[in-house]
Amino acid sequence: MQMPANLIPVSEFVGEKMAGVTRRFEAQLASDLPPVNQLCAHVERYRGKMLRPTLVLLCGLAAYARAGSEEAERSIGEDHERAAAVCEMVHMATLVHDDVLDEADTRRRGETVNRLRGNEAAVILGDYLIASAYHLCSQIRHGGHRSALAVGRASMVLCAGELLQLHHRDNYSLDERTYFEIVDRKTAELIATSCELGAFHSGADEAMCARLSEFGRKLGVAFQIQDDLLDLTGTEASVGKSVGKDLEKGKMTLPLVHHLASADALTRGRTLALIESAGERAGAGAEETLRAALASTGSIRYASETATRLVREAKALLEALAASPAKSVLLLMADAVVDRTY
Amino acid sequence: MQMPANLIPVSEFVGEKMAGVTRRFEAQLASDLPPVNQLCAHVERYRGKMLRPTLVLLCGLAAYARAGSEEAERSIGEDHERAAAVCEMVHMATLVHDDVLDEADTRRRGETVNRLRGNEAAVILGDYLIASAYHLCSQIRHGGHRSALAVGRASMVLCAGELLQLHHRDNYSLDERTYFEIVDRKTAELIATSCELGAFHSGADEAMCARLSEFGRKLGVAFQIQDDLLDLTGTEASVGKSVGKDLEKGKMTLPLVHHLASADALTRGRTLALIESAGERAGAGAEETLRAALASTGSIRYASETATRLVREAKALLEALAASPAKSVLLLMADAVVDRTY
Repeated sequence: MQMPANLIPVSEFVGEKMAGVTRRFEAQLASDLPPVNQLCAHVERYRGKMLRPTLVLLCGLAAYARAGSEEAERSIGEDHERAAAVCEMVHMATLVHDDVLDEADTRRRGETVNRLRGNEAAVILGDYLIASAYHLCSQIRHGGHRSALAVGRASMVLCAGELLQLHHRDNYSLDERTYFEIVDRKTAELIATSCELGAFHSGADEAMCARLSEFGRKLGVAFQIQDDLLDLTGTEASVGKSVGKDLEKGKMTLPLVHHLASADALTRGRTLALIESAGERAGAGAEETLRAALASTGSIRYASETATRLVREAKALLEALAASPAKSVLLLMADAVVDRTY
Repeated sequence: MQMPANLIPVSEFVGEKMAGVTRRFEAQLASDLPPVNQLCAHVERYRGKMLRPTLVLLCGLAAYARAGSEEAERSIGEDHERAAAVCEMVHMATLVHDDVLDEADTRRRGETVNRLRGNEAAVILGDYLIASAYHLCSQIRHGGHRSALAVGRASMVLCAGELLQLHHRDNYSLDERTYFEIVDRKTAELIATSCELGAFHSGADEAMCARLSEFGRKLGVAFQIQDDLLDLTGTEASVGKSVGKDLEKGKMTLPLVHHLASADALTRGRTLALIESAGERAGAGAEETLRAALASTGSIRYASETATRLVREAKALLEALAASPAKSVLLLMADAVVDRTY
């Protein structure tokens, strides 16, 4: 993400606060038991874009922007750092468990916990992360009750989304409505909650909290669609995690949902045959043929345009916010969600 | 558990409150998504002794017993029911995940979730249960902050105990100190927290909360030792879940820890050979030979006596409590922990 010169101060400010988030994250996981710490050391490597904590901090700043920038920065305190660490911790827990469910070997260019330490350790580590997130959430000083409710609810919704996805595995008749129901819960809910908590801890009113939550929700759905596209069109070298896994695990992505709904019977049949063979690791040839099939029905473009539209809608929701460097960075971040190749 | 006539009223009172606990438990899990509800229906069958919620309610009553029994009953309110449902939900989550880790097929005379619905559904269901427990915990009205901290911490400690156990799998040199470290975290912590929360929500002072927590901790360790013994000496028909699993999964139990530490070199070698063969499902013959070996070093008796001593110590902690029907039931429950065959 290119950062214009006038936004470098706020970006640096968020960077400094992020160091505090990371310190709280690590302190929360620290145990008196060496085997626990050894396992938690793997989690560090899982940390990537830090999207959720960044959104907590930026939404906190942007929601406070009625006042001058310096005052807004003073409004970002320990509770923002705690909430940011909590959101990232919940996210890490889902990544660790997802990699078990997906039997994934690679994540962020490194081997997954399940690959390195076995499924059992990975399941328990995920549980430890969720418990730690909740324990840290209970340490939020002001408005901790609201935060705990929001994080608890978001975690439930997230799991329900995962279950819905599992329920529809290999359902090649999945309609778009159900696809969006899954994504809304599985991915967008926690991102929406991150934005909402940032605003809430800056003392924003309910309307502002709801608006930033909706911003996060749209951004989250766009984020997932971009992930779908990267799984289909990216390479493991550029994306940094296993690709082609969605198909292999029978997960329906937006390009595929669109393609199967709009292709003629013959094309549909051919695509389904290709997907079957993908499960047998038929190699790069089959993947390219599949990409060509999805392109022939305009499905890759359709998914890409849908993500772009959602980002546009997300950005429009920020119009009600006073101009501020934090708002400008949020707008840039929104664009970056669909521009990224990793 | 035989209930003397004078204790039937309090027992019935707890039974009524337990209906409220169950209602809250089910209402909390209910989802707008049918696949989620279908999966949660399996959890009902997992419910067994309801030890943790019973302890929340009884400790709540007993801690309030300075006043007359009727007034004590009035002190048991919605927050006790919520706390009781939360403790059971955290426990259910660990059972569901444990059965995945242990590859267990049977639990409470029924097939396990992983057996019926696969490992993926079981991992996500466990996560959903944990998230639901935290969400319900955030709905506690009075002293919710303390409850949330306690439940978050207990869940972290519980996971750390599971990790420690996994770390020491197949460690046939495990010493007693480490065995108790594992059990204290894995089993006793949540039982201690259940007792503590019951007292706390009755307005008990810190000393009383700590005393009842310690009662629960000793009871919890005794409970685990009895589980160890049942896995070794029970039958699937009487225990209602897979037995002999501890050995098969390389989990060290107290009788085995004692035996390996006290046997001579030859006996020790023979036992280790037997354990190896247990992993290959050598049949009932090997199991009986193993039981005989453990008996020869007095290890079964040693474990049994240790559990009995812990129950005695637990009961002694209740001496400071005023006499009340709830206290009498707690004393009976403590005895039942080591008397049970299921």
